Amino acid sequence: MNIDMIRAAAQRLDGYVRKTPLLSSPFLDEIAGRRVLVKPECLQHTGSFKFRGGWSAVSALDADTRAKGVIAFSSGNHAQGVAYAAKKHGVPSVIIMPSDAPKLKIDNTRALGAEVVLYDRANEDRDAIGDALAAERGLTLIKPFDEPQVIAGQGTAGLEIAEQAAEMRIFDAEVLVCCGGGGFTAGISLALEAEAPKMKVRPVEPEGFDDVKRSLASGSIQRNDRTSGSLCDAIVTPQPGNITFPIMDRLVGPGIAVSEDDAMRAMGLAFQRLKIVAEPGGAVALAAALFHGDQLNGDTVIATVSGGNVDVDVFKQALDTLND
Amino acid sequence: MNIDMIRAAAQRLDGYVRKTPLLSSPFLDEIAGRRVLVKPECLQHTGSFKFRGGWSAVSALDADTRAKGVIAFSSGNHAQGVAYAAKKHGVPSVIIMPSDAPKLKIDNTRALGAEVVLYDRANEDRDAIGDALAAERGLTLIKPFDEPQVIAGQGTAGLEIAEQAAEMRIFDAEVLVCCGGGGFTAGISLALEAEAPKMKVRPVEPEGFDDVKRSLASGSIQRNDRTSGSLCDAIVTPQPGNITFPIMDRLVGPGIAVSEDDAMRAMGLAFQRLKIVAEPGGAVALAAALFHGDQLNGDTVIATVSGGNVDVDVFKQALDTLND
Repeated sequence: MNIDMIRAAAQRLDGYVRKTPLLSSPFLDEIAGRRVLVKPECLQHTGSFKFRGGWSAVSALDADTRAKGVIAFSSGNHAQGVAYAAKKHGVPSVIIMPSDAPKLKIDNTRALGAEVVLYDRANEDRDAIGDALAAERGLTLIKPFDEPQVIAGQGTAGLEIAEQAAEMRIFDAEVLVCCGGGGFTAGISLALEAEAPKMKVRPVEPEGFDDVKRSLASGSIQRNDRTSGSLCDAIVTPQPGNITFPIMDRLVGPGIAVSEDDAMRAMGLAFQRLKIVAEPGGAVALAAALFHGDQLNGDTVIATVSGGNVDVDVFKQALDTLND
Repeated sequence: MNIDMIRAAAQRLDGYVRKTPLLSSPFLDEIAGRRVLVKPECLQHTGSFKFRGGWSAVSALDADTRAKGVIAFSSGNHAQGVAYAAKKHGVPSVIIMPSDAPKLKIDNTRALGAEVVLYDRANEDRDAIGDALAAERGLTLIKPFDEPQVIAGQGTAGLEIAEQAAEMRIFDAEVLVCCGGGGFTAGISLALEAEAPKMKVRPVEPEGFDDVKRSLASGSIQRNDRTSGSLCDAIVTPQPGNITFPIMDRLVGPGIAVSEDDAMRAMGLAFQRLKIVAEPGGAVALAAALFHGDQLNGDTVIATVSGGNVDVDVFKQALDTLND
């Protein structure tokens, strides 16, 4: 896992993955007390950065293997990213989802070209179902974060950040990354190590689900007590990955945890000042930039918005924070 | 008014005005029955394309004239675009607004660096107040659309559309432009005439405020019966301009009028599928692309989203269209 893999992924992604702009607003700068730049991966295909990793992984397969198709376990952004990447490559994808996943997510993933296979959380073994399907059809499993080509794909966002910041003569900044299993964080930190070595990545998580923050502080992988019950569900995972954690441990600064309320307020401000739609998990880094400046250093902070796949009702709640 | 002015404006804008991406979603393609690309100028500085024209006009002034400051009559997007362009140039701006303008718009315009001068709609003469201030301080008036350097600035969005479409190997498309006084429409059509001559601009307006459509159909400038009472207020003007109309008359195809309901549905879909915030007037072109395909030609349509400065309550109404 190194910068050459990220550069190679960037070449495979070129022309297929959207280069998202860096956004800003003087109103956000004032709230934060420093310059805030936002990398809105909600504007990426399928509404999250996960399309980068999906495309990278699918495109890295040799043609014969790819033609048989890919498989992923996900009810969220990874599912949509992999499904659409496979569809655009003209190859089949199977997405394994719990049968109680929201119908809209199931429908969206199907519409993006996937065969969705549902399993009963209580009585069936997800991995056994996936393994059997993969073996029967020769499908390649694409893991959501602990997979080098996925990390390489996510890292291409870091290459873009380095290039776009340099165009603005910014070389020294903390880069806040919405962090679940660490694929996005590890990929961006590897890209910045090579292309913008004065920048420092800071992982941001929801309070109560700050396994990466605790893992970094203790120097060993720590688990979350639970993985459900967060509005920021898109970035909640049991623990950092075996590949992603050592990269983060070597390269990133201390983690930051923000409350759900902070994330919702950041969503409201992203609507009002940037005209973008963030999901709660996608807004935690912006929340840290805006409301936790005491934990940050320097004149400029760059915050990723990792995704925008949010239900109307939750988004309305976020809008209501603007009236407080 | 020619392409050279637009190219010169693009040089002055480079590094200061945001290059907005071209967005898309397979879900929107399916609704439209053709490929839909969206140019989201809601992501521009100050939340609308008006910053382009504001920057172009301010930057085109000679240094001594500019240093004295600029003045504009507007309670909307033009006010914010001019104010912020002036602030970024380090020169004063005066914005004349009616005293009953929404407090939030007044506050925002002030926060972007302008001196806001309020007048009483019923008892005071806006132009007399502006003329007196301009004469006293040597301010330069920046008109919202019927001004060559403003049109040149708006036209830079057309240069970007031509370049971005060419990167996708798209040379032949109808380009739907949200149309008020015609500055955005005329500028884009001049840019495309030079850079993408197979593309055709189609102006889009709200029903009941379709002065440009009627003017094009009749070959002479027609007025709206009224200029208030539309949710799409950002793009409602009394009539096309004396400079913009002849350009549109020569270059653009027939106008399209869409209902407010269409605009609100397009806002909802832009939220859901593109993760962007559109204002009602900014969503009329996307509404035409999605719901009026019978009036369009070709496999690909490019729709501008001209702005995203929308109140929370109106946006919530747009979100509610997704449940229908």
